[in-house]
Amino acid sequence: MTHAAEPVAYDVVVIGAGPVGENVADRARAAGLTTAVVESELIGGECSYWACMPSKALLRPVVARADARRVPGLSGAVQGPLDAAAVLAHRDEYTSHWKDDGQAAWLDGIGADIFRGHGRLTGPKQVTVTAPDGTEHRLTARHAVAVCTGSRAVVPGLPGIEDARPWTSREATSAKEVPGRLVVVGGGVVGVEMATVWNALGAKVTMLVRGEGLLPRMEPFAGELVAEALTEAGADIRTGVSATAVRRAGGGGPVTVELDNGESVEADEVLFATGRAPRTDDLGLETVGLEPGSWLTVDDTCLVEGTDWLYAAGDVNHRALLTHQGKYQARITGDAIGARAQGKPLDTARWGAHAATADHAAVPQVVFTDPEAASVGLSLAEAEQAGHRVRAVDYDLASVAGSGLYADGYKGRARMVVDLDREVLLGVTFVGPGIGELLHSATMAVAGEIPVARLWHAVPSYPTISEVWLRLLETYRG
Amino acid sequence: MTHAAEPVAYDVVVIGAGPVGENVADRARAAGLTTAVVESELIGGECSYWACMPSKALLRPVVARADARRVPGLSGAVQGPLDAAAVLAHRDEYTSHWKDDGQAAWLDGIGADIFRGHGRLTGPKQVTVTAPDGTEHRLTARHAVAVCTGSRAVVPGLPGIEDARPWTSREATSAKEVPGRLVVVGGGVVGVEMATVWNALGAKVTMLVRGEGLLPRMEPFAGELVAEALTEAGADIRTGVSATAVRRAGGGGPVTVELDNGESVEADEVLFATGRAPRTDDLGLETVGLEPGSWLTVDDTCLVEGTDWLYAAGDVNHRALLTHQGKYQARITGDAIGARAQGKPLDTARWGAHAATADHAAVPQVVFTDPEAASVGLSLAEAEQAGHRVRAVDYDLASVAGSGLYADGYKGRARMVVDLDREVLLGVTFVGPGIGELLHSATMAVAGEIPVARLWHAVPSYPTISEVWLRLLETYRG
Repeated sequence: MTHAAEPVAYDVVVIGAGPVGENVADRARAAGLTTAVVESELIGGECSYWACMPSKALLRPVVARADARRVPGLSGAVQGPLDAAAVLAHRDEYTSHWKDDGQAAWLDGIGADIFRGHGRLTGPKQVTVTAPDGTEHRLTARHAVAVCTGSRAVVPGLPGIEDARPWTSREATSAKEVPGRLVVVGGGVVGVEMATVWNALGAKVTMLVRGEGLLPRMEPFAGELVAEALTEAGADIRTGVSATAVRRAGGGGPVTVELDNGESVEADEVLFATGRAPRTDDLGLETVGLEPGSWLTVDDTCLVEGTDWLYAAGDVNHRALLTHQGKYQARITGDAIGARAQGKPLDTARWGAHAATADHAAVPQVVFTDPEAASVGLSLAEAEQAGHRVRAVDYDLASVAGSGLYADGYKGRARMVVDLDREVLLGVTFVGPGIGELLHSATMAVAGEIPVARLWHAVPSYPTISEVWLRLLETYRG
Repeated sequence: MTHAAEPVAYDVVVIGAGPVGENVADRARAAGLTTAVVESELIGGECSYWACMPSKALLRPVVARADARRVPGLSGAVQGPLDAAAVLAHRDEYTSHWKDDGQAAWLDGIGADIFRGHGRLTGPKQVTVTAPDGTEHRLTARHAVAVCTGSRAVVPGLPGIEDARPWTSREATSAKEVPGRLVVVGGGVVGVEMATVWNALGAKVTMLVRGEGLLPRMEPFAGELVAEALTEAGADIRTGVSATAVRRAGGGGPVTVELDNGESVEADEVLFATGRAPRTDDLGLETVGLEPGSWLTVDDTCLVEGTDWLYAAGDVNHRALLTHQGKYQARITGDAIGARAQGKPLDTARWGAHAATADHAAVPQVVFTDPEAASVGLSLAEAEQAGHRVRAVDYDLASVAGSGLYADGYKGRARMVVDLDREVLLGVTFVGPGIGELLHSATMAVAGEIPVARLWHAVPSYPTISEVWLRLLETYRG
């Protein structure tokens, strides 16, 4: 092990070069600050290689086929199976074959210095990077260190699980072959998206869900409609069950998942999509008085509680485990670091330039299944729990002219949650084919806090699915 | 001819039972007013039988096939032609085979009395309906008459045109067979949509466009991208030319269109998509001091200038010739009639409940071609002409991750027009595959007058096409 003679000083040191770290660096650069970025794996992060990009590259053909099958004059042409090899090859292109040259060049292009290796805090504003060859670089941050290390999949500590070599989201998004049979443990977003992909590519999929239904963080009808479609597509969804043990037969044989109801399921692979943990366990947090392995609690500028120099943006702060929300936090973090470094006042009021207010009020998410499920803001249950006086307004998306034109036999549903005191929307959910891009209209309404009276003037173009907005308003007026 | 002994009195008489008239009646009913609705053709109007519904039923398979062809693993399945018979049969279903029983039942269900026949004003608040059998019904309106008669296609008075039996939008949306060769005169929305349909169904399409490009009311890149795709799909687009004469060979033979450049084009059918005229020529306008055949000028409550009882909503007032905008006006008209009848105060302030403000500021339109073209509010040219201090911000939609995932080889473009004085958006245009439902986010932003600083908090979900919003904001910030 060698040591650099002297620490190298930067204005900002960013640990983690996923989309979040990249955006912090970009905004710090915009504020005129020098920046070092530390990355132990691929620049571009989980999203680029084992999450958003590969999953959506895998899902898009599934959804496009489902849509095409529901269109007259075309449906006969698309009854056959997807060309799995073509879909997987396309996924490989979208992950740049798990090489990060392009993203490294981008980061280099914005003037950030890249340090490849494992970054650890060694004290306030001090970071040591251990390169793969054992070389150490000592960095100091004049103004701020930003932790953007993200999260990792959590696999439960079941008997036999290590020998069973289960899939996590990483293997599920990067697998090179279609397993004959796949068990998916978990009914959240990763679970339903990966069940959708591998089922469509030819695997016999069994989902094991501990709770009552899929997508438990969305309105109940989201999980119901997705479960109905997945079941029709051939998946076996079992709810109210938990895995108790996993056993892999010798020599790469099949895997058996034991269940708490006494049954068992045999498959070729098993995916655990059962949760995430912060990547903070080997980050030197103990050197600055924080708990290794914990989520980092931050204020709305993403400053870690109890510090005036340590920021945490993205999954690691546990506010919203979504790439786009992490990037949003990153922009605010970078701008806040810049403003503080320059001694400028911060605008940390609600919806201010330096407050990640949307994390509380307007987090959007699109689940790219068939049907798509998308939501922003609070569900009815969340709004009630938060003490708002609300009314949920529902509408059957199949009754919108644009939906029927989009797909024969359209099934879908929409809900808006109205704050009765302020007459603004707290949350909106759409479930149905072709609604992915429609979500942003809801995000505008919720984040823009557009009063219901003004929403009447936002006329949806006829005949689009967007006309559901008119129907929701008419239903609300009664 | 027989006369009813006494006029029948209603609170409101609506002339024209398209979507606009239906909505005026519905809102008048909600205000407790009795309503008569007069219709000389099919209840449901142009939109249901010869415009939105059939055109979109014809276009959706074309767009879905184009989308499917750009998806890996699926494209091989959809190289063949569309099943034209299936597409036309589907269109026939969507127009209820040009029967209006369903819509008549709806109108009856809301308590409106339906008078089938030609309605004419015979003086203030007086309407006479001449039924198909010659029977006359005299109606009086205690509070208001609403003219919702819409518009008709205008065919230019070229030599030979009557004998040539040209198509208008009605024949283009209701034709039972695919012509071998089709000439489309006009490059507006009807022209490009019908060229898209019939080209995809197998016709050899030639477009004759007087101006420099297609879709002249949108940002220039809209027409450019649509023209590029239509040309690639096999259409022949000729700009800067006008038809000077039309000649149909005897016995139902081919039609020849003579051009002002000395050339001529032969085809089996010719569609004139060259403009609209108000259906006010035989409406008795002269009995109330108005000019027959003129567009009816209205205020923001849709009250006709110089009257306190005559309203005009929809195409006929020439504010925005779009079904959804007419329905919007109809809701406001019906509510205004109701409020005035009840002696309640009206809210006619900008964006008030009784002011069709969106007609001036936020008219959305989606052109359902491949690529789709969608806009809301003012184009750059319109904003500049209106004297706003503006900046146009452009972004290449192909550079958005969600676009590439949506379609291989994605081509598209986005523009937002920012009012630099108020820091709100005056207009937004998207052109590209899959952007139809994205438009409503722009309509929310424009009609909601969401400040640019707040738009930063409306986070687009990753990786959707909606992320273009982030790119536009980043580009604006520079």
